[in-house]
Amino acid sequence: MENYKRRTDLALEAHEINAEKGQPDGVIVNENVIDEVMVTTAEVKPGRGEDLTGKPAGVYTTVDIGRVWQYDSVRFNKTATVLSGEINKLLPKLQEDKCILVAGLGNVDITPDSIGPKVCAKIIVTRHIRALNRELYDSIGFGSLAAISPGVLGQTGIETAEIVKSVIDKISPYCVILVDALSSRKLSRLATTVQLCDTGLRPGAGVSNSRSEMSTESLGIPVVSIGVPTVVDAATLAYDLLEELIAGSDIKSTGSCDFDNLYDDIVEKLMSGSGRNMFISPKESDVITKETARLISTAINLSLHKGIDIKDMGEYLS
Amino acid sequence: MENYKRRTDLALEAHEINAEKGQPDGVIVNENVIDEVMVTTAEVKPGRGEDLTGKPAGVYTTVDIGRVWQYDSVRFNKTATVLSGEINKLLPKLQEDKCILVAGLGNVDITPDSIGPKVCAKIIVTRHIRALNRELYDSIGFGSLAAISPGVLGQTGIETAEIVKSVIDKISPYCVILVDALSSRKLSRLATTVQLCDTGLRPGAGVSNSRSEMSTESLGIPVVSIGVPTVVDAATLAYDLLEELIAGSDIKSTGSCDFDNLYDDIVEKLMSGSGRNMFISPKESDVITKETARLISTAINLSLHKGIDIKDMGEYLS
Amino acid sequence: MENYKRRTDLALEAHEINAEKGQPDGVIVNENVIDEVMVTTAEVKPGRGEDLTGKPAGVYTTVDIGRVWQYDSVRFNKTATVLSGEINKLLPKLQEDKCILVAGLGNVDITPDSIGPKVCAKIIVTRHIRALNRELYDSIGFGSLAAISPGVLGQTGIETAEIVKSVIDKISPYCVILVDALSSRKLSRLATTVQLCDTGLRPGAGVSNSRSEMSTESLGIPVVSIGVPTVVDAATLAYDLLEELIAGSDIKSTGSCDFDNLYDDIVEKLMSGSGRNMFISPKESDVITKETARLISTAINLSLHKGIDIKDMGEYLS
Amino acid sequence: MENYKRRTDLALEAHEINAEKGQPDGVIVNENVIDEVMVTTAEVKPGRGEDLTGKPAGVYTTVDIGRVWQYDSVRFNKTATVLSGEINKLLPKLQEDKCILVAGLGNVDITPDSIGPKVCAKIIVTRHIRALNRELYDSIGFGSLAAISPGVLGQTGIETAEIVKSVIDKISPYCVILVDALSSRKLSRLATTVQLCDTGLRPGAGVSNSRSEMSTESLGIPVVSIGVPTVVDAATLAYDLLEELIAGSDIKSTGSCDFDNLYDDIVEKLMSGSGRNMFISPKESDVITKETARLISTAINLSLHKGIDIKDMGEYLS
Repeated sequence: MENYKRRTDLALEAHEINAEKGQPDGVIVNENVIDEVMVTTAEVKPGRGEDLTGKPAGVYTTVDIGRVWQYDSVRFNKTATVLSGEINKLLPKLQEDKCILVAGLGNVDITPDSIGPKVCAKIIVTRHIRALNRELYDSIGFGSLAAISPGVLGQTGIETAEIVKSVIDKISPYCVILVDALSSRKLSRLATTVQLCDTGLRPGAGVSNSRSEMSTESLGIPVVSIGVPTVVDAATLAYDLLEELIAGSDIKSTGSCDFDNLYDDIVEKLMSGSGRNMFISPKESDVITKETARLISTAINLSLHKGIDIKDMGEYLS
Repeated sequence: MENYKRRTDLALEAHEINAEKGQPDGVIVNENVIDEVMVTTAEVKPGRGEDLTGKPAGVYTTVDIGRVWQYDSVRFNKTATVLSGEINKLLPKLQEDKCILVAGLGNVDITPDSIGPKVCAKIIVTRHIRALNRELYDSIGFGSLAAISPGVLGQTGIETAEIVKSVIDKISPYCVILVDALSSRKLSRLATTVQLCDTGLRPGAGVSNSRSEMSTESLGIPVVSIGVPTVVDAATLAYDLLEELIAGSDIKSTGSCDFDNLYDDIVEKLMSGSGRNMFISPKESDVITKETARLISTAINLSLHKGIDIKDMGEYLS
Repeated sequence: MENYKRRTDLALEAHEINAEKGQPDGVIVNENVIDEVMVTTAEVKPGRGEDLTGKPAGVYTTVDIGRVWQYDSVRFNKTATVLSGEINKLLPKLQEDKCILVAGLGNVDITPDSIGPKVCAKIIVTRHIRALNRELYDSIGFGSLAAISPGVLGQTGIETAEIVKSVIDKISPYCVILVDALSSRKLSRLATTVQLCDTGLRPGAGVSNSRSEMSTESLGIPVVSIGVPTVVDAATLAYDLLEELIAGSDIKSTGSCDFDNLYDDIVEKLMSGSGRNMFISPKESDVITKETARLISTAINLSLHKGIDIKDMGEYLS
Repeated sequence: MENYKRRTDLALEAHEINAEKGQPDGVIVNENVIDEVMVTTAEVKPGRGEDLTGKPAGVYTTVDIGRVWQYDSVRFNKTATVLSGEINKLLPKLQEDKCILVAGLGNVDITPDSIGPKVCAKIIVTRHIRALNRELYDSIGFGSLAAISPGVLGQTGIETAEIVKSVIDKISPYCVILVDALSSRKLSRLATTVQLCDTGLRPGAGVSNSRSEMSTESLGIPVVSIGVPTVVDAATLAYDLLEELIAGSDIKSTGSCDFDNLYDDIVEKLMSGSGRNMFISPKESDVITKETARLISTAINLSLHKGIDIKDMGEYLS
């Protein structure tokens, strides 16, 4: 039963898979409730932890933002503030004369993959205002932010990582925040969870098919990644369902169940034709993606623009 | 094991579910390949057929349009022509002085539910041209078509059926073509299948949550329904997976498997929180929905505007 | 110098044209500043007033909403509140058991013509909630609102007035609010002015090319029209420019200026080809239309849903 | 009467302005009709030509594409082929191992400014296919194309020129094609004309407010610019109207007309408030921009992908 069949971009889920198998992976998990929002950290240790989770060593923070698209403004603002606090913990020390670059990864034309570009569209960019109107910039209490949506390989013919790297080389930010859609193994996590880390995005991750790594090492500056699960791999979903069945019943006690072959047959049958390699997402992805992007951009704006009250945030955006 | 747990709007699938259980439902199925396109008819008989499929008696035609979004123009046109031929079989005899109304049901803001409005947007409407410029109308060989997108209850506060009925009462078409998104039980059928019938749309059907029936009886004129499965109910998908597992293994022979309770537990667990009542759809719904809508509108335009060659179709649309 | 050359849908502008010519038209104009917002009423008298303005007798209220797309939330809410107050003056007495229907006229695919559909999309519709959940409805303090976007003749093949009338006949509202884009003669009025009246919309008005009148007489119930100038007719703009020139200079004293012929020549020359019958609008129509629609929908929501505070308005919209 | 009051990005129009004043500017104009499409070249000479037109010396080709949004496919393809031929004349010699980069300048959210990004979206990008699947690449007859939409300063906080330059430095194309919206002085030229040149885009040009020059000199590789007039500066339109009036009448013979002051007064009056610095565009910008972008992308695809027949072009785009 190979792991590769189960796709998840969440470190916490990779750890869960190990835990379900009773396989210790040395990942240290901590849960915290901050202002009614659950924040879970999973520390992946070098070596065994990396091998068994398939994630680079580091601390992965999962913020349970919940169903943002149903929030009133009070709860929205509270959740954005908690998320902003977690982002702050990952940001390097402010460098007054440099900016932070937000890169919104993904394809704006595929709804569940559009969260990165949609976050970008709501970033209050100020790098140019600082240059053009320093007085205004200082009086409002802006930080210096720039933002790009590099598109995806199929739209540009250029690896996303190449574009991001080239812009970094040009404008020399002191940190880059990468925002991307991820895949999860559970429908219930779709768009209700945000994963933060400082280890970058790995090849083959998520839905955007970025083939080149983007990390502090490859980009040359500190990287903060913000990932939102917006799709579930259909095969992973099927697999988990089946495993639950085995685990929760006395089926496994029969011993005669050749689970792996059976699994392959069923997945083959159910997804014959177009189902293969299918990512699935909620029907309401449009509104879900829009509101989740608004939450994340609000959190980033809060973290950088210390002078703006969250209630006035909307007025700086067109 | 109640049927209500498994949602499908396709008569053929309802029949499949019965067949899998070895339950004869009196539905007569016929398969035909027309110009390389598979066309299946399922005749639901009154009485037992209706009870066991949950569909009104009538003939349901399923056209396997395939993955339209990957077609070249030759295959696209061939498929549209076959689909148009099947629509023709359902249309009532032409009434020269009246029009046909196309009603595109669903919510244009939810991608998988937007197929109806998207078809409407590509209908070559001509009812007004006939009145304003009869010479042009005749010379091109138009038929008389009108089209409305009535929106959904949550957008208008008015039942879709009420709006459609009121427009029918006003403009007196001799037939209404309803286009709507449906739910299927198989990922592989999503957007690769079109169901045609003349029995109308039933309460609770599909994804658009129309609560009032639209049928020849309720609308007072012949109804042709064109439905496209664009979502799968997550619970139905899970159920089918589990049943496949049981059916394909020696698990059922143990006899000890309390399948129903187990099923409920697993679904509960997997979809706890937001998963409940979740409809899922492919990640690429945007492009899939767009191209499928183009196919259906092309087929309808072909059926009604006898004077237009399929190759020139695009020129009558803005 | 025929009037037909100068297109304006604003009664106030029709009066201005007369005033500029020194032609008394019996229109009584009153200006009021309410909470820093200028509100002007123009009362068109039957007979001479109608003939010289080309507008049906009645009171036309012009609210100078200003450049909404640049407002902070305080000013936005203040302006919406004043606009709501003016709408209230035109609404008939509340009929508890009936709803008000908002009809958003125009073509959603042509930005400057999309203000009607965009307002509709932000109306908090409640007619169905009242039926489905009376307790919720009462506890929040909703009024009963329904909303439709009937599209335009070229999209539907059906006159807008026919669709609106058919829905009115079906659901029997006690009042209909029509929202439409208008044409103005001044660039400076584009999207900075709203005209309210209870005389309906006239044939040939505005940009939406509705050919059939929609008035209390034709629709059978009280009509409140909300019009927003979003385009300027290019010929009207040219004409006004030229007339200004003549008026402001000693040119007219030469007497030899055959102004009308000259005008025709110039307009011909400047707009040869595509310029003829051209409506023009600001480059930023997208953001302007969006924000102005938000203002108008907020004002309508305020007028009808007495229980909702303007600050919480956004939470009732998806 | 200063030139700065009249904004045009078209070299041909700058020359027209001089010609109308009877001021020789040394620009050599040639007209050619190719396959029913008018192609005009204006050669701006160094020195006097540059000073009087405000354009860098070089050859500017104007292709009268006409009202593309009303074409049937035959005329569309013919026009695209002529345009492609003119692009070919400006492209440097093919370098087999390098790509051409298309940069679509402008703001995708402002319709008349979105032509660049919209062209990009329809470019058949192949740079990555060449690397990933050389056999496919060769068999179809692709050329190597990459494409980016760098956004505008207000969205990114980064000068467009900086982003374009950084990507050029990274991927080393042998030529960059810049596509941008321009301003014209005549309504009749809007979206019916395309200007091609190899002199780059100048600071302050067009509507996208790019402040930094993009030229062969600044970018380090050959530049081909494709500009489409999509807006008219309202003040320029007014000015031209007035000048026509003077020119076409015996007004100027009075001698007493202080034209400049008068002009300022009138423009002031007409555009008081929001009219200042207003760009105007046709009401139907949405459809116009979309179809014009399709024409330009088709022409670019034709120029680079020698193996694809124009009739099959659509099949390589999603």
